[in-house]
Amino acid sequence: MLTRIDHIGIACRDLEATVDFYSRTYGFQVFHTEVNQEQGVREAMLRINGTDDGGASYLQLLEPIREDSAVAKWLAKNGEGVHHIAFGTEDVDGDSEAIRDKGVRVLYDEPRRGSMDSRITFLHPKDCHGVLTELVTSATPGDDEAH
Amino acid sequence: MLTRIDHIGIACRDLEATVDFYSRTYGFQVFHTEVNQEQGVREAMLRINGTDDGGASYLQLLEPIREDSAVAKWLAKNGEGVHHIAFGTEDVDGDSEAIRDKGVRVLYDEPRRGSMDSRITFLHPKDCHGVLTELVTSATPGDDEAH
Repeated sequence: MLTRIDHIGIACRDLEATVDFYSRTYGFQVFHTEVNQEQGVREAMLRINGTDDGGASYLQLLEPIREDSAVAKWLAKNGEGVHHIAFGTEDVDGDSEAIRDKGVRVLYDEPRRGSMDSRITFLHPKDCHGVLTELVTSATPGDDEAH
Repeated sequence: MLTRIDHIGIACRDLEATVDFYSRTYGFQVFHTEVNQEQGVREAMLRINGTDDGGASYLQLLEPIREDSAVAKWLAKNGEGVHHIAFGTEDVDGDSEAIRDKGVRVLYDEPRRGSMDSRITFLHPKDCHGVLTELVTSATPGDDEAH
């Protein structure tokens, strides 16, 4: 069961400049940064609020580190902007299976590693009215400690 | 101060079909529907989770009711997908003024009426790394009663 908006993924060309914009304009703070080699991105998570399922909602700022990454190709086509949205669940395996059974294409056979050691998968945007949609199970639900 | 992700605004061509997708696929329920003549849209709010500032996070599904509305033009150019993101604040007037003073273009001189009698304004996407960004002050903070 999807119990929160986990994050909004935003593609950008310059991670430091974009973090600076969000920090300067709104006061949002960097909660976590990492490089995800498999996804071909480096990223900053800005924590916006806590959620009533014990998790939190973030902005995830994404800069590609390789020209052949999905985010690099998306940026070349669309320019900077909202790349995907993500819903949090306690059971990404069960939920993605149930959603696949409803005829929505799930992009990974098995969930992969996402931000902060979460487990994630993606749903095909053409099956979701144009919205690239991610499902996320946090490594440690309710863990609010910055890394 | 912006204290939550208030909603993600998603543009669609057929509101009933899109509501049906979100309901069937994820079990999300319609919390509120309305027509906003000024914005030229009819919309459904799907409540996803409560937030630790006493508010909530929604998906806002938007279908244009006029060809000359901003959402209709956006759909013609981009197809269905994420149209904007919105942050909740207790003081949309003060925050939009402070943000304008930082050099970000605020699209309305004064906040206008948004979903559920909220007061809203928008920031120019070109000043926000490609993201059309809305600021929202709810009519009744913490009011979780469906209409």
